[in-house]
Amino acid sequence: MIETLKWDPNEERLILLDQTKLPQETIYRPLETLDEVIEAIQALRVRGAPAIGVSAAYGLVITARGINQTDFEGYMAALREKADRLKAARPTAVNLQWAVECIMGRLQQMDLHAVENIPGVILKMAIELHEDDRQRCELMAEQGQSILPPKARVLTHCNTGFLATAGMGTALGVVIRGHERGMIERVYADETRPLLQGARLTAWECQQLGIPCTIICDNMAGALMKQGAVDLVMVGADRIAGDGSAANKVGTYGLAVLARAHRLPFYVVAPFSTFDSRLPSGDLIPIEHRNPEEVLRVMGRCSVAPDQAEAWNPAFDVTPPELITGIITEQGILKPPFDVAIATLAKLQPGI
Amino acid sequence: MIETLKWDPNEERLILLDQTKLPQETIYRPLETLDEVIEAIQALRVRGAPAIGVSAAYGLVITARGINQTDFEGYMAALREKADRLKAARPTAVNLQWAVECIMGRLQQMDLHAVENIPGVILKMAIELHEDDRQRCELMAEQGQSILPPKARVLTHCNTGFLATAGMGTALGVVIRGHERGMIERVYADETRPLLQGARLTAWECQQLGIPCTIICDNMAGALMKQGAVDLVMVGADRIAGDGSAANKVGTYGLAVLARAHRLPFYVVAPFSTFDSRLPSGDLIPIEHRNPEEVLRVMGRCSVAPDQAEAWNPAFDVTPPELITGIITEQGILKPPFDVAIATLAKLQPGI
Repeated sequence: MIETLKWDPNEERLILLDQTKLPQETIYRPLETLDEVIEAIQALRVRGAPAIGVSAAYGLVITARGINQTDFEGYMAALREKADRLKAARPTAVNLQWAVECIMGRLQQMDLHAVENIPGVILKMAIELHEDDRQRCELMAEQGQSILPPKARVLTHCNTGFLATAGMGTALGVVIRGHERGMIERVYADETRPLLQGARLTAWECQQLGIPCTIICDNMAGALMKQGAVDLVMVGADRIAGDGSAANKVGTYGLAVLARAHRLPFYVVAPFSTFDSRLPSGDLIPIEHRNPEEVLRVMGRCSVAPDQAEAWNPAFDVTPPELITGIITEQGILKPPFDVAIATLAKLQPGI
Repeated sequence: MIETLKWDPNEERLILLDQTKLPQETIYRPLETLDEVIEAIQALRVRGAPAIGVSAAYGLVITARGINQTDFEGYMAALREKADRLKAARPTAVNLQWAVECIMGRLQQMDLHAVENIPGVILKMAIELHEDDRQRCELMAEQGQSILPPKARVLTHCNTGFLATAGMGTALGVVIRGHERGMIERVYADETRPLLQGARLTAWECQQLGIPCTIICDNMAGALMKQGAVDLVMVGADRIAGDGSAANKVGTYGLAVLARAHRLPFYVVAPFSTFDSRLPSGDLIPIEHRNPEEVLRVMGRCSVAPDQAEAWNPAFDVTPPELITGIITEQGILKPPFDVAIATLAKLQPGI
């Protein structure tokens, strides 16, 4: 299985598979500075909420190594300032903030005084988070098996496989495990405009794994459901509020409305690191708006509109809890009412 | 206003604005043979149900001029065979069949015996159809004004303006007339994958006319409606069955489901030539499936998926009558129950 990111212990740098170049080119990029990590996150060279979280953890190692202060207070103040910049790289996926705060919080609780040890301590935590994410993907994939009908035809949006996480994925992880067990007839991959993560990445992952996959334009999902070709919809999430509202790649909300109209199950697959119970409602999730050029120019080069045309480009939308059948997590499937389920979870899993 | 098609009386040929080249290039193509007309229709150099109908009428003139038989029966048999080929160029938009049959039917009722007169007779009918379509656009545009709220924010799909008809358009014609009267705040144009008629053509038409227009990816319509930015949805149609089901560019059905979920009016704008009351239900409308390459390669050149990827590419979907608020025609706005309204219309307008 292709690794979407890895730590290079010799050169002490993060190596990313540049997802903006897939599927045409498989290019690994070494990242050696905080600015390079932030640029990679903002340009979507690495994407998918869990993969962003793990990348940020390694980004913090790189950051820590680059700080010159030798006094502990000055060092920690500089680290905090840079950690805040890293956290702000993209606003919607909470895994980014979660990973950074997870490490910063643990650092503060440790009895550290020698600044030269700090990068090594952070690296250890980053490697733990990386391995932890991999294991959580395995657990979600297992948990999700119970909702797959035989010969499942699954419609999905954006990309949620091994490119989007440190492991086998969230929604696509459930599909991949299902495929290993002969449960999957076909994946329908929304192409997912504007950046085409479905066509470029999900279809590519399915090819690598031998999973039958048909790409559709996003606007074909209704027609596909209407002709009875879909058994269920499964998507990932970038942030889940306390009421169960799920922010995910723009278009997810429309799919959820269509799934409801066709009485199809609509599942969200996300690890605990994607939950943000501090936000009581989905309306409070900040939505990143990206450069309209992404809409006006396909693959960064193919102009599809007249010069000076205007476009709207929110990267995410929010699906309200009433449209979600269940949220598949690493410890089970949450069912409505989600506010109760998530509050219970938050008591057991501090930090959610 | 730019003419999407015109007859060249000197060279006796049809001249089309090649819509596959817009908005980057404004190229007029002369068509001098039946094969060229069929190719232009199939390749979507001319598109939009009414514009296809008028092009087919001129295509019949070109066809008639190219027949060498001198005996009347032989001539008419050859014309019929070629007319059938023309009718079969694309299956969904009924205007194509309607225009051809309209002319063939009138020919049969005439007392023609000299074959050399036939092309001239057909040309006269084609010019009438052309002018008739232009006038019908004006009438629809007027009829539609009553449903526009002040400062209307209209979401539309595909292209339905002067490029799609011989006049000012169907759905976009209503918007254009509304804009002239200060009723339109903004058009939101679905980009309309795979062939991007919204981004390429609707945004371009709006620019030409000074109508504020924002392009969105098709999958953003739900998020846009949810934030209260849309007052109504207005689309064209390629064929309307006797029950009011409307076949239109793929994605229309999904928009209609979203409009209903957000309690937004959903209007179809179409002339009588788009109605096909011989078909009692929308399930009977034949849906054209096009080359998957249109999905896999944007603008015919920009690959967006891995090699050997599969795609599904229906050109149309069918919106059921229960999701349609009203159908704006040249003689008024049909309201549910549409089967009754259309049956009444069919009595008054034979051939619908």
